[in-house]
Amino acid sequence: MTEAIDVDLAGRRLRVGLDVGGTKIDAVAVTPEGDVVARLRRPTGWGAEAVVDTIASTVTALAGEAGIDAAAVSSVGIGIPGLVDVTTGRVLHAVNLGVESLDLADRVADRLRVPVHVENDVKAAALGAAAMREIDGSMAFLNLGTGVAAGIVVDGVIWRGSRGTAGEVGHLSVDPNGRLCSCGQRGCIETLCGGGALARAWAVPGALPVLDILDAAERGDVGARALRADLFNGAAAAVRALVLSADVERVIIGGGLTALGDRLLSGIRTALQAGAEASSFMRSLHLDDRIELLPAGSPAAAFGAALVGAATPLKEIVTHG
Amino acid sequence: MTEAIDVDLAGRRLRVGLDVGGTKIDAVAVTPEGDVVARLRRPTGWGAEAVVDTIASTVTALAGEAGIDAAAVSSVGIGIPGLVDVTTGRVLHAVNLGVESLDLADRVADRLRVPVHVENDVKAAALGAAAMREIDGSMAFLNLGTGVAAGIVVDGVIWRGSRGTAGEVGHLSVDPNGRLCSCGQRGCIETLCGGGALARAWAVPGALPVLDILDAAERGDVGARALRADLFNGAAAAVRALVLSADVERVIIGGGLTALGDRLLSGIRTALQAGAEASSFMRSLHLDDRIELLPAGSPAAAFGAALVGAATPLKEIVTHG
Ligand SMILES: [Zn+2]
Ligand SMILES: [Zn+2]
Repeated sequence: MTEAIDVDLAGRRLRVGLDVGGTKIDAVAVTPEGDVVARLRRPTGWGAEAVVDTIASTVTALAGEAGIDAAAVSSVGIGIPGLVDVTTGRVLHAVNLGVESLDLADRVADRLRVPVHVENDVKAAALGAAAMREIDGSMAFLNLGTGVAAGIVVDGVIWRGSRGTAGEVGHLSVDPNGRLCSCGQRGCIETLCGGGALARAWAVPGALPVLDILDAAERGDVGARALRADLFNGAAAAVRALVLSADVERVIIGGGLTALGDRLLSGIRTALQAGAEASSFMRSLHLDDRIELLPAGSPAAAFGAALVGAATPLKEIVTHG
Repeated sequence: MTEAIDVDLAGRRLRVGLDVGGTKIDAVAVTPEGDVVARLRRPTGWGAEAVVDTIASTVTALAGEAGIDAAAVSSVGIGIPGLVDVTTGRVLHAVNLGVESLDLADRVADRLRVPVHVENDVKAAALGAAAMREIDGSMAFLNLGTGVAAGIVVDGVIWRGSRGTAGEVGHLSVDPNGRLCSCGQRGCIETLCGGGALARAWAVPGALPVLDILDAAERGDVGARALRADLFNGAAAAVRALVLSADVERVIIGGGLTALGDRLLSGIRTALQAGAEASSFMRSLHLDDRIELLPAGSPAAAFGAALVGAATPLKEIVTHG
């Protein structure tokens, strides 16, 4: 049975954004002026039902954190990995969440009775990073996490491309003799600078293998030095690919590998400078000046999700009883 | 001395477009309905003065060819290699024309007393190819000539990017151990599928070395087979780079290497299919279905230049006497 419920939107002011990752949800509450007034991180559930449950309970808990009633939430935006149909809010193949197919926007809207929009997590993070860094023109957000992907934002709007693969530079091959990628190709950028590929190549257990690689490289370990070079060269190749194809003005680097901090940024910068040394064409692009790093733990992804949610037209919410 | 001349634009109907290459100018006259009513090819002059002279005389000759008075030309658009400032119509570093710096739009407008717009040749060709193939969404024009570069058109508008390097996929390195590129890097896509790089690697004189390479490869020559694989794999890499970054819907292949005809198209298609065989992700992109080849000798570049010229606002022409 379907019943239309007339929802009074008056007094609803806070936009909530959630970045739903494989292990945790990062959620923020944002004022209409763009200030983050509350933030909460919680473990993500596994499977469709648990994902809906944890999203709904996180929004309620976040409202409590912000000292407001859950009814004061005006919109919810969700950034989530996998294939997202932004029109319907349906998510497909979010494999690291145990979700094969889920009408996420409808399900969460039913529970919370607020407008809900869903976006691919990297694209949402790109929007958030562009907004937080106040970038007007074109930019790419290069996510260095377990995998590698970028989102492109032009004039404050997510650049989708024709079939949703804009920014998928992680699976460009830059070495025909490189390591085998999970996608089946050899030498993808992701095999060089993806946290998952580096951890597999390092093959020593640890909480953050890429950090161990950098430490071992500094102690002179030859294998670690080669992997460190891969990390920096791979990220530099991603920056080049984004500038030489879409010609974004800036590349903002985010994702889990930002835990490496300045060692990551200066390593990528040095790799770009070495490339510029060899090539006057590369030199003319000033790529080393066009990159920046988000601080570790930046709420950019959740903030971007809040922006995605706020774009929801104010409409009647239809519940499926 | 500068003098404003009031030009009567009534009766001026034909748009002229010129594709100025290193050896020849290809010029077309186009009706407001988009029909090419005349076409002329002439040798290009060397150096700034000769370039201006040959462009002006080609427009006059083309008008004659079309059976109209030169005064019936409503606009002139010029596609030319090198760095083009589309606002001022100035051209820099068109090295294969012997032009270091030239106020091309002003100089030609002075001579012909019509509005003149100038555009980078590959970008103009991209616009022409998109128009001739009636592509509404996003596309890239991949120019396989002496060098390799692409132009991107989205919804009928040239995608410029932030600094004019959108589509410069020819200088993406896809092999750290590859041949040295003229740009100073190793393994650029252009070293694999650029006509100049292939001719240097083949090192046997001939009118069209890339055609000789394909013929020798079919006779079983081992070196030629390796270069043939480079050609097809390099072009396939360019297609992947364009789709995985800007996510254009279609890639139209043009340039001098289209003289190879179906052998070129089917070779690139086979390379894309081989890549898709190894990777379900690549398979999902259906890249082999998304490419097409311009016929050899297509007027797309000159036609695109005519479109660029037609965008000229009707304004008073100022001559510098
Ligand atoms: Zn891959
Ligand atoms: Zn190069």
